[in-house]
Amino acid sequence: MQNFDEMVLHFLKDMYYAERSILKSLPDLAAKAQNESLKRALTQHADETRMQVQRLEQVFAGLGQPAEAVTCEALVGLMQETDDVLKECSAAGPVRDAALLACSQAVEHYEIARYGALVEWLNDKGHGELASVLQLSLEEEKQADAKLSDLAKREINKAAVLS
Amino acid sequence: MQNFDEMVLHFLKDMYYAERSILKSLPDLAAKAQNESLKRALTQHADETRMQVQRLEQVFAGLGQPAEAVTCEALVGLMQETDDVLKECSAAGPVRDAALLACSQAVEHYEIARYGALVEWLNDKGHGELASVLQLSLEEEKQADAKLSDLAKREINKAAVLS
Repeated sequence: MQNFDEMVLHFLKDMYYAERSILKSLPDLAAKAQNESLKRALTQHADETRMQVQRLEQVFAGLGQPAEAVTCEALVGLMQETDDVLKECSAAGPVRDAALLACSQAVEHYEIARYGALVEWLNDKGHGELASVLQLSLEEEKQADAKLSDLAKREINKAAVLS
Repeated sequence: MQNFDEMVLHFLKDMYYAERSILKSLPDLAAKAQNESLKRALTQHADETRMQVQRLEQVFAGLGQPAEAVTCEALVGLMQETDDVLKECSAAGPVRDAALLACSQAVEHYEIARYGALVEWLNDKGHGELASVLQLSLEEEKQADAKLSDLAKREINKAAVLS
């Protein structure tokens, strides 16, 4: 990363790794959720994530670069933490749902931080059109996080505290 | 984690590990920043982080539990990513500052997600006073993130794009 373009490309590759890993993990996480609304939220987010992967490919193409991934250590850590938490909650149920939801929000927040930086950088470089493509993903991540917060307040945490 | 209380305690220990690791890493990150405003922001955040560690200790005490840490895999991953990015930007300067700022924001967002969940859970459990202690840390993290976004827009990214 000797210059700005190389740095932006590195973070794009990092997000490409992250989104594809998230896409692979979501069906398993949805299967582990007991609450039906949480299951639906995670399944719906898999559809959004599929589109977010395509948007990243669109940005690679717009920059004249091949779509490549580099290991995103942050996402590896976030997923490791999710796995550990799920294992430590031995049984499916409200407490595990509350923990799973919180871990999903940590992933959303990682993506919000990364897309926020990428949108700024692409705009700074004069790639307004490509920035607006990733702005869509940024807004989706913010909405997904808000939806999970709402679900936690309305259903999940109330059930967990009683268990 | 067989019940809600054990889950909350687990995530408190996770944040205790995270905050203490962040506190250790910030002087090194501030030293690696070239931009003076970024250096100051990271140094100031170390002072806030010191207080956030104390607030977690206050919450442990309020719950009648010893202040203990469990390895926070997510934070380990986020810090590994920061290290890798800094190594790949061979020289100090605007590009490395932009990358360092983005990595710091990813850490802030992790903390926003975690404190958000902990505040909700403590309130749900009737520990409103302890929740309000962590609400202070949550607000600080949001402000730290907003301050970094502002600094990126005003100074750091403009310098990086020209390099």
